[in-house]
Amino acid sequence: MRLNSFSCETWVEPGAALAEIRSPIDQALVGLVSSAGVDFAAMADHARMVGGPGLRALTFRVRAERLKQLAAYLNDRREGLHRLSLLTGATRRDGMIDIEGGIGTLFSLASKGRRELPDEHFLVDGAVERLSKGGSFAGLHIMTPLNGIAVHINAFNFPVWGMLEKLGPALLAGVPMIIKPATSTAYVAAAAFRLIVESGLLPPGAVQLVVGGVGDLFNHLTGQDLVLFTGSAGTSTKLRNHPVISANAVRFVAERDSLNAAILGSDAGPGSPEFDLFVKEVAREMTVKAGQKCTAIRRVLAPAAWTGAVVEALSARLARTVVGDPRRDEVTMGPVVSLAQQRDCRDRIAVLQGEARVVYGDPARPAVAAGDPEKGAFLSPVLLQCDDPAAATRIHDVEVFGPVSTVLPYRDPAEAIALVRRGEGSLVASLYTYDAGEAARLVSGIAPYHGRLILIDRDCAKESTGHGSPLPVLVHGGPGRAGGGEELGGMRGVHHYLQRTALQGSPGRLAALTKAYVKGAAETAPPAHPFTIPFERLAVGDTIVTPEREVTLADIEHFADFTGDRFYAHMDEAAAAANPFFPGRVAHGYLLLSFAAGLFVDPAPGPVLANYGLDSLRFLKPVTPGETIKVRLTVKQKNPRNAEYGEVRWDVELTNGAGETVATYDLLTMNALAVAA
Amino acid sequence: MRLNSFSCETWVEPGAALAEIRSPIDQALVGLVSSAGVDFAAMADHARMVGGPGLRALTFRVRAERLKQLAAYLNDRREGLHRLSLLTGATRRDGMIDIEGGIGTLFSLASKGRRELPDEHFLVDGAVERLSKGGSFAGLHIMTPLNGIAVHINAFNFPVWGMLEKLGPALLAGVPMIIKPATSTAYVAAAAFRLIVESGLLPPGAVQLVVGGVGDLFNHLTGQDLVLFTGSAGTSTKLRNHPVISANAVRFVAERDSLNAAILGSDAGPGSPEFDLFVKEVAREMTVKAGQKCTAIRRVLAPAAWTGAVVEALSARLARTVVGDPRRDEVTMGPVVSLAQQRDCRDRIAVLQGEARVVYGDPARPAVAAGDPEKGAFLSPVLLQCDDPAAATRIHDVEVFGPVSTVLPYRDPAEAIALVRRGEGSLVASLYTYDAGEAARLVSGIAPYHGRLILIDRDCAKESTGHGSPLPVLVHGGPGRAGGGEELGGMRGVHHYLQRTALQGSPGRLAALTKAYVKGAAETAPPAHPFTIPFERLAVGDTIVTPEREVTLADIEHFADFTGDRFYAHMDEAAAAANPFFPGRVAHGYLLLSFAAGLFVDPAPGPVLANYGLDSLRFLKPVTPGETIKVRLTVKQKNPRNAEYGEVRWDVELTNGAGETVATYDLLTMNALAVAA
Repeated sequence: MRLNSFSCETWVEPGAALAEIRSPIDQALVGLVSSAGVDFAAMADHARMVGGPGLRALTFRVRAERLKQLAAYLNDRREGLHRLSLLTGATRRDGMIDIEGGIGTLFSLASKGRRELPDEHFLVDGAVERLSKGGSFAGLHIMTPLNGIAVHINAFNFPVWGMLEKLGPALLAGVPMIIKPATSTAYVAAAAFRLIVESGLLPPGAVQLVVGGVGDLFNHLTGQDLVLFTGSAGTSTKLRNHPVISANAVRFVAERDSLNAAILGSDAGPGSPEFDLFVKEVAREMTVKAGQKCTAIRRVLAPAAWTGAVVEALSARLARTVVGDPRRDEVTMGPVVSLAQQRDCRDRIAVLQGEARVVYGDPARPAVAAGDPEKGAFLSPVLLQCDDPAAATRIHDVEVFGPVSTVLPYRDPAEAIALVRRGEGSLVASLYTYDAGEAARLVSGIAPYHGRLILIDRDCAKESTGHGSPLPVLVHGGPGRAGGGEELGGMRGVHHYLQRTALQGSPGRLAALTKAYVKGAAETAPPAHPFTIPFERLAVGDTIVTPEREVTLADIEHFADFTGDRFYAHMDEAAAAANPFFPGRVAHGYLLLSFAAGLFVDPAPGPVLANYGLDSLRFLKPVTPGETIKVRLTVKQKNPRNAEYGEVRWDVELTNGAGETVATYDLLTMNALAVAA
Repeated sequence: MRLNSFSCETWVEPGAALAEIRSPIDQALVGLVSSAGVDFAAMADHARMVGGPGLRALTFRVRAERLKQLAAYLNDRREGLHRLSLLTGATRRDGMIDIEGGIGTLFSLASKGRRELPDEHFLVDGAVERLSKGGSFAGLHIMTPLNGIAVHINAFNFPVWGMLEKLGPALLAGVPMIIKPATSTAYVAAAAFRLIVESGLLPPGAVQLVVGGVGDLFNHLTGQDLVLFTGSAGTSTKLRNHPVISANAVRFVAERDSLNAAILGSDAGPGSPEFDLFVKEVAREMTVKAGQKCTAIRRVLAPAAWTGAVVEALSARLARTVVGDPRRDEVTMGPVVSLAQQRDCRDRIAVLQGEARVVYGDPARPAVAAGDPEKGAFLSPVLLQCDDPAAATRIHDVEVFGPVSTVLPYRDPAEAIALVRRGEGSLVASLYTYDAGEAARLVSGIAPYHGRLILIDRDCAKESTGHGSPLPVLVHGGPGRAGGGEELGGMRGVHHYLQRTALQGSPGRLAALTKAYVKGAAETAPPAHPFTIPFERLAVGDTIVTPEREVTLADIEHFADFTGDRFYAHMDEAAAAANPFFPGRVAHGYLLLSFAAGLFVDPAPGPVLANYGLDSLRFLKPVTPGETIKVRLTVKQKNPRNAEYGEVRWDVELTNGAGETVATYDLLTMNALAVAA
C-alpha cells in the first residue's frame, strides 16, 4: 500500500506528507505516496557515477540484447500488472494497450536496435566529408551517449507504456534514468518498475524511481542531462522554465496538450467505406481508455452537408458504450482516473458549451451499467457540435481529457485545413478519403502542424493500427501546443540521448577512431589473401590490388550473347557514340563487376562464406574495348554478427589503365570466425 | 549613417532613442540605430503571410539554385563590405574569415543542397516501415518547411558570416527570416543585407531586418516559428525564458559561451611536430579577430612537465603580434569591438587572476604599434597560467571574449579529460597527438561534451582548416554551457526548420503522396517497354515482369571460366554443401545480375542513356543449377537533373520458379526527356 521509491539501489519507504491514491471505481484506497524521504542529490549522483558508466561499458548492441531480454521478462510476468491496471479504471482492453503495448514497444525497439546498432560505443552519423583538396584532412560525425541522466516524467494514462516507451530508447542509448510516474496510477508503474529491477538485467544505477514529487532534483541537472516530459502544457512550461534547465541547456523533450483532429474527406459521403471507417474510429477513440489519451480525437471535421449524418452515426455507435466498473466483463468503458479528473472534464465541457452544443450524452449524469455512480468517476461519452468553428476559439484550445469530442462542419478542404491548423500543433490527425488529390491537399496543408498523419481508407483499414496508436518505429510528438518534442521513431528516439560530435583530422586518424576505412587512410598489406584470413584477424585497411585484365571487344560481344543484354551502347559503335555519355561502344557494367570478382576472388574454401550483396555501386567512367581494368579491395568495416561469423564491408575500386576510377562500390561478405572453423 | 531596418519590403528610418555606434579604432561615429519605428506585428505577419508562401512555392532544389546565385551576387560585391569591416576593428584577414567565409558557406550549402535535396516540396526521411503482416498498411516520415518565421539573432564578431551561416539553411528549408544583427557591428551586416535585397533573388517577405532591439517581436511567435540565437548565455537565458517561447514550444537553437580547450598530447613533447602545431594554433586562435571568436581557445592544456616550454614558445609567438589600427598593413591584430568590450575583458582577466597569473602580456597597457592607445579599444594578447587547475573554478567558467587564454598543466590523460569536462560543454576542442591510443582515449573522454573535435597532427596540419573554423558541412554548436544548439552540418542544419511527420496508410496512398514506389502499391502496366518511354512520361509504379530464364550448371561453369571467378560455392558440390548458407553449388550473384539485365533491357536506342549504378543489392536466396529466374522491374522514383535528362531509380526483384525472392536492388539509370530528344 505504501509505494516505495527506488534510490541508490535501495527501496525507500515514503516519508512524511503521505498522499492517498484512491481507485476511481469506488474510492478504495490503493496506495500511499510521498517522496519526502528521497535524497535527490544522492540519486542524481548515483545515476551519474554508477549507472552511466555501467551502461556505457556495454556496447549499443549489447544493450539492445538486454532490452530484448527485459521485454521477455516482463512479458512472462504481465498478468499481475493487469490486476492492478483494472483498479485505475482501465478495462482489460485498455490495460492491453498499456501493458502489452508497452512490452511490444520494447520488443520492437530491441529488434530494431539489434539490427541497426553497432557492437560499439559510438555511432557514425552520415558520410565522411572531404575537407581538403589533397585529401589529407577530412571530417565525419559520431554520436556518443550523454554522460548524464535522463529524467522521465510520465503521464497517468498509460503507466506501463508511458514508462517503457521512454525507457527503451534511453537504455539503447546507454543513459541512466530517474523515472517519475504520475501519482494517480503510480502503483501500476511501480509494480512494473519492480519487475525491471528484479530482472537483474540492468546494471546498478541504470534505473531509479521517484514515487511522489521530484523535490529538488532539477537543481542537480547539468548540460549532460535531459528531461522527457509527458503531461499538461502548464506543468511542462513550469518545468521548462526552471532556471537550471535554461542555464545549463538541459535538453527538454515535451509531449503535452493536443487537439487532435479526424477529417472526413469531401469525397467520403454517407455510404462510402471511408465514412463508416471515420465513424468507427472517432467512436473508438472517444471511448478507449475513457478518452484519456494524448492522441484521442478532440475535433471531428466533416463536410457541412454530412454533419447530421455524422452525428447520427456517431451517436448510434456511442450508444453501445457500456460505462461502469471495468472489472465487469460487459463494461466497455471505465471511469476516468479520479473524481478530480471527472470534475475537470465537466468544467471543460462547460467551457466548450459556450461555443458548441451537446448532441450526444449527458455530461452531468452518465448511465452507469455496473458500479456505484456516486462513488465512481464515471462520465458518459459526450459529443458536441459547433456550428461556427471558424469563429470559435475554445474548441481549438481546450482539451477535455476524457470521452469528449466536438463535431466541426467545414465547407471546403481549404477551410478544413485552416480549422485543423487552429489547433496550433497536434500529435496526430487522421484523414478519411479515397481521393488522391484530396489526400495530397490535406497532407500538404497540415503536415507541418503534426507529428503523425494517418490516412485511413478501404485499402488499409483492415490492418490499420488506428488513429490513436503511437508506434515504436514512427515518431510520436508534435509541434507547438503538443510540446515540440519527438519520441520513438525507431533509432530517432535514441538520438535524443546522444551527443553528435564532428571529428576532423587525417583520414588515418578518423579511420582508427571509427574502426572504418576512410579514403586516404593508409592501406595495409595483409599477411595473405584477405579471403583466407578469419574475421577476427582481418584488419580494417587491409588491401590487395589485383593484376590487370584487358576487356576486349570479343568479351563484350560474348557477354551480350551469353546474358542477352544487347543494349546498343555495347553493340553499335555509331549509336553508342551518339549517346551523350559514351565515346563509342563500351563494356557492360555487370561485365566489369563480374571480371572484378574474377580478379579478386580466392576460390578455395576459407573464411569468406558468401557474397551477400553490395551497396552504392556507381559506374564513373566507361570502359572501351581494349582497355584494362584492375581492382583495389580494402577491408572497410567489420560488423560482428554471432559466434560463427560476421559481416565484412569491403571498399572496392576499379581503375583503368590510366589509373582513372571506373567504378566504386561496397562489397558485402559474410566471413567465418577462426574460433568457429 | 542612420541604419535602416527593413520591414514589409520597406526601408524603415530609425525612430526615437537613437543609439550611436562608434568605431573601436578611434571612437569615430559610424552609425545611428534604433528600431523604434518598426511595427513588429506587421513584420511577423508579412513573413508569415507573404514570405513563407513565396519561399514554399519553390522546391528545395530551386531554393538551392537561388542560394548559389545569391552567393555569386555577394561575391561580386564583397569589396564594399571589407571597407566597412575594417571600421569594426577587424584586420583584412579577419574580414576574410567574415566575408569570404560567409559567402563560401553559402556556396558550400548551395552545392550540397543541389546535390542532396529533391526537386520537391518535401523530403522523405528514412525508410518505409512495414506496419502490418499483410502489407496493406505502412508508414514513413516526411519533412516539410515549418509554416512560420525564423528569427535570427546574431553576434557582433562576424556580422556577415554570422548572418549568412543562418540564412543559408533557412533559405534551403524555405522559412522566411527576421534577422537581428548585433548593434555594435550592425552597419556591416546591414550592408550585406542590402545587397541580398537588391539582388532580387529572394521572394518578397523572405528576409527582413531589425537594426536595434527586437521590441515585442517575441510576443508574435507561434509553434511554427523558431529562434536561432548566437551570443551570451545571459541573453540566451533571458530570451529562452520569454513566456511565449515555452507556451508555444517555439524552437530555440542557442550557441553561446564556450571555454574551448586545446590539448597537447602526453606523447607530444617539445621538438615534436605536434608540439609546434599546438603552439602555432593556440597563438593564432588567441589573436585572430582579437580573440573575439566563440570557437577561440580559452583553456590550453599541456602535460605538467612541458608547461614551461609551452609558455615560452607561446610567448615568443605572441610577441610577434602587431596591435593597432587594422587599416595599417603591418597590423596583425586590431582592437576589440568597443571600449565597453575592452573594459569587460579587463574585468574578467582580473577574475581569472584570482586563480592564475599572467605569464605574457600586460592586461592594462597594450603596446600599440599604430593608432591612438587612448582612444582605441586595444588589448595586448594575454596568456595566464593556472598551477592548480583542478582546484580552480573561474578558469573553467569565465570566458574572456578577447585575446586571452590560460595554460593549465595536467598530470595524465585522465586528468586532462576531467579538466576539459569542467568546461561543461564547449563548441570545440583541438587535440595534438600522434599516438593512436592517446587520441582514442581523449576523444572518447570528451566527445559527449563537444560539438566538434579536431585532431591536428603532422599528417593533416598542412591542409587543416584549424581549431577555430566552423565548416558548413560539419555541425557547429555544443552541449551545456555552449547552448545545446546545432547549426550547419550540411543538411542537418536545414532540418531544424522542418517538421518531421510520420505518414501512415496504404502503400498506394504513401506512394502517391511521396511520388516514390512503396512495396505493396499497385503496379501499373506502362503503354510500352519502360526503356522506350521518355523521362516525363514514365510513371512511378510502371512495372514489367520478364519471362523466365533457366540458370543451368553449364551457365555457371561457363561464367566461372569467362570471368575467372571460380569460387568453390559455384564449382564444388561437396564444398558448397558444407557452407552454412548453400545447399550445394549455386549460381554466382553477378551471373544472376547479368542475366536479369539480359531479361529486362530493351536494346534499341531510346530514352535510357546509361545504367549508372545500383544501390542496396542483397542476395536473399541462392539459385541452384536448373532453377529459373525472372525479374520484376518497377519505376521507383524520378529525380529531374537538367533540361536533357533525369535519374530514374528502379525497384528490381529477382524471383525463382517458386516465386521466392532471390535478390533485390535499386537500379539507377539516366533517362532522356522527350523534349531533349
